[in-house]
Amino acid sequence: MTTRKRPSLGCWLVLLALATPLVIIAGENGSSTHITVSGVFFSLVVLLLAAKIGGELFERLGQPSVLGELLFGIILGNLTLFGYTGLEAIKTHPGIAFAAEVGVILLLFEVGLESNLNGLLDVGKSAVFVAILGITAPMLLGYWVSSIFLPASTWYVHLFVGATLTATSVGITARVLKDLGRMSARESRIILGAAVLDDVLGLIVLAVVTGIAGSVTSVGAVPAVTVQPILLIFSKAIAFLFVAVLLGRYLAGKVLHFGTRFRIRGVPVVLTLCYCFVVSGLSEVVGLAPIVGAFAAGLVLDKTYYQGYRKPGRYLNSVKLEDILSPISSVLIPVFFVLIGLRVNLESLFSIPVLQFASFLCIAAILGKQICSLGVLDKGVNRIVVGIGMIPRGEVGLIFAGIGVATLSAGKPIFDSETFSAVIVMVMVTTLITPPLLTKFFPAISEES
Amino acid sequence: MTTRKRPSLGCWLVLLALATPLVIIAGENGSSTHITVSGVFFSLVVLLLAAKIGGELFERLGQPSVLGELLFGIILGNLTLFGYTGLEAIKTHPGIAFAAEVGVILLLFEVGLESNLNGLLDVGKSAVFVAILGITAPMLLGYWVSSIFLPASTWYVHLFVGATLTATSVGITARVLKDLGRMSARESRIILGAAVLDDVLGLIVLAVVTGIAGSVTSVGAVPAVTVQPILLIFSKAIAFLFVAVLLGRYLAGKVLHFGTRFRIRGVPVVLTLCYCFVVSGLSEVVGLAPIVGAFAAGLVLDKTYYQGYRKPGRYLNSVKLEDILSPISSVLIPVFFVLIGLRVNLESLFSIPVLQFASFLCIAAILGKQICSLGVLDKGVNRIVVGIGMIPRGEVGLIFAGIGVATLSAGKPIFDSETFSAVIVMVMVTTLITPPLLTKFFPAISEES
Repeated sequence: MTTRKRPSLGCWLVLLALATPLVIIAGENGSSTHITVSGVFFSLVVLLLAAKIGGELFERLGQPSVLGELLFGIILGNLTLFGYTGLEAIKTHPGIAFAAEVGVILLLFEVGLESNLNGLLDVGKSAVFVAILGITAPMLLGYWVSSIFLPASTWYVHLFVGATLTATSVGITARVLKDLGRMSARESRIILGAAVLDDVLGLIVLAVVTGIAGSVTSVGAVPAVTVQPILLIFSKAIAFLFVAVLLGRYLAGKVLHFGTRFRIRGVPVVLTLCYCFVVSGLSEVVGLAPIVGAFAAGLVLDKTYYQGYRKPGRYLNSVKLEDILSPISSVLIPVFFVLIGLRVNLESLFSIPVLQFASFLCIAAILGKQICSLGVLDKGVNRIVVGIGMIPRGEVGLIFAGIGVATLSAGKPIFDSETFSAVIVMVMVTTLITPPLLTKFFPAISEES
Repeated sequence: MTTRKRPSLGCWLVLLALATPLVIIAGENGSSTHITVSGVFFSLVVLLLAAKIGGELFERLGQPSVLGELLFGIILGNLTLFGYTGLEAIKTHPGIAFAAEVGVILLLFEVGLESNLNGLLDVGKSAVFVAILGITAPMLLGYWVSSIFLPASTWYVHLFVGATLTATSVGITARVLKDLGRMSARESRIILGAAVLDDVLGLIVLAVVTGIAGSVTSVGAVPAVTVQPILLIFSKAIAFLFVAVLLGRYLAGKVLHFGTRFRIRGVPVVLTLCYCFVVSGLSEVVGLAPIVGAFAAGLVLDKTYYQGYRKPGRYLNSVKLEDILSPISSVLIPVFFVLIGLRVNLESLFSIPVLQFASFLCIAAILGKQICSLGVLDKGVNRIVVGIGMIPRGEVGLIFAGIGVATLSAGKPIFDSETFSAVIVMVMVTTLITPPLLTKFFPAISEES
């Protein structure tokens, strides 16, 4: 991070030059009414190349690669502004949508894998207070901003906008802290602990808010909001996570160990995927978002290694779960982010009210997380660093936004096109400013290569 | 193969017991009209587990695992006979269908990777003659049988039935010969060379036949069959393969080498997939099946290693393409075969005419490949072994059958439900009898562990 490597622009121009004809071919074969097999394949190639080129470009600029994937998605999706509609069909192609859906499940599974349950319990009261403040403050600020800028919308829309502000991206924060060589600092441990708790609490908030909004079936109807259903979803979420973690820890090991008896190839991957899908599916069955289950599934498998898999030459004897999944997740996760970008309608941003809404959301998002640094109880901790570390919304914020447009309330999506675009801008801004800010206030002490 | 390992039935019962509740849950959540996210996930888990359990069971019985995947798919798909309709929705779910489509592309890509272009040119005239006889004899026999049993169908349906008999499964033959420790025998080299040529020729036949049948737009219309369009498709296929191989060999290396400059993860997989998708898509653009392109793409990359990929800890410095793709292909390829099995309607087999048709197709398929052993020019070669080695239709036959039901001719599929079932039976029987027959006539000489 401190030693910026100059991006070799030549390479990019070459790859972009290679990608351009594909965009054209993809367009010719994928008209908006009918899409051929080759049309889907070309479009998929365009998505994947855009993801990798964008990701790499941002990585080299010292920014999180997810931003690059998103930005390149936005660029591709808004080529319509220049009259190019070839990629319209892919925005709604069910196969690509399914791939993205599996991608986001795998992302949360990986976030779960990276989170350490025991480490989580160690970080102490500070992390808990920071997390709770980090949920409440942005939630209230977001609700307030939304109610000012969207006076025509009902209160549960404001609630959903507030909910999208609650997330903290463990992935991005952890990545930056690791790049700074500061992973073991007290500030970092508090940030990471709080970020993980934020993830869990945020997913519960999401479940509650989606539950409320989804229960509204006709325009103007008042959702049946008593404390009871909220409490029910909340306790279901806690119970589900508890049972999933407890039972999972016992069962997952057995099932995966059983897999060592197989002789055919691909059994470790398939069993891991099946386990992740089953827990995700069950979490939807009990009324939570599938990503909650995926996170819980990952949390359980932390540090689980596939010992004894004897496929000669294919895998080593002891392989990390992350490495087994990596080829699949590194293809499907970018598909999700590029698709989110594709669906951002830039035209809806070309209006002063939307831009104002987006700016105030950004301020609410940043301020909200600064407030949470008041929750730090330990002495000698740099509160500014903790506050900054909690700012990025990253992938979790995008997932919330995605659910916001996908969930129907009273027959139409919770987020209209303008709100969605404003939220995406907020996610991008908060994610973008964190790495440079953190680098400024929390100087690197050692280089990790 | 000679030392049969006893399958430990206990394990299977345990896994089956675990899978059964899932089948039920999948059913409850995936009614035939509407399918929830969890419904898809549960169904996908059922598909994947069925594939791995079926595959492993057959592997342990000394049979090709693809048969197990197919059989378990047939069982699951025909639970409707017992009144269970929970898996009906998955048969037509666009996301699963897309996964299967990518799976079959990856399969042919892998077959291409396993085939060695130079080795192919070495095997000499025998392989060429065996391959040509191995295409013509089953084609004519199949056409004849079809014209007897399907008197109401037009001649291009018979042609398509004949075409499905032409394939030889390189994968299955190679696998059995390897298990017998006979890979270097003269017979084996002829079989493998001819099987690869059969693949290429079979794909060209497929392109020609699909082109003819697809050109018929109304019932009773006579397809515009002059020698010209057939010659056109044929030369397009040859030209495409030639250009793909020639250009591919030059470009693929450059593009993949360029990938070594990336720092983000997943670039080798994504570039490989993109390359494979682009060639597959282009092959559809010039009028060939996408699998032809996938095969050509794989053929080019034979022996290409990703040297210099420096992702620390993720991959080794020099990784085989097969190993990079393995986690993805070992998930998606079985989805294809289980889905093919799911779509087999056993009820349509419960009639004497269909069973007779299937039996005669089997005889035609086996006899046709015995005739091809006359093409062996070398002395001292066991012709019976060559004939037997060419029998299995395996995955390529299934792909043909799949295209047969998917391609519309005069507004309806080329294969009706009965023909499709009969062809599937033929594929299963020919694939099933080869391993034991080959083991009998071509005893193992050394064990490869």
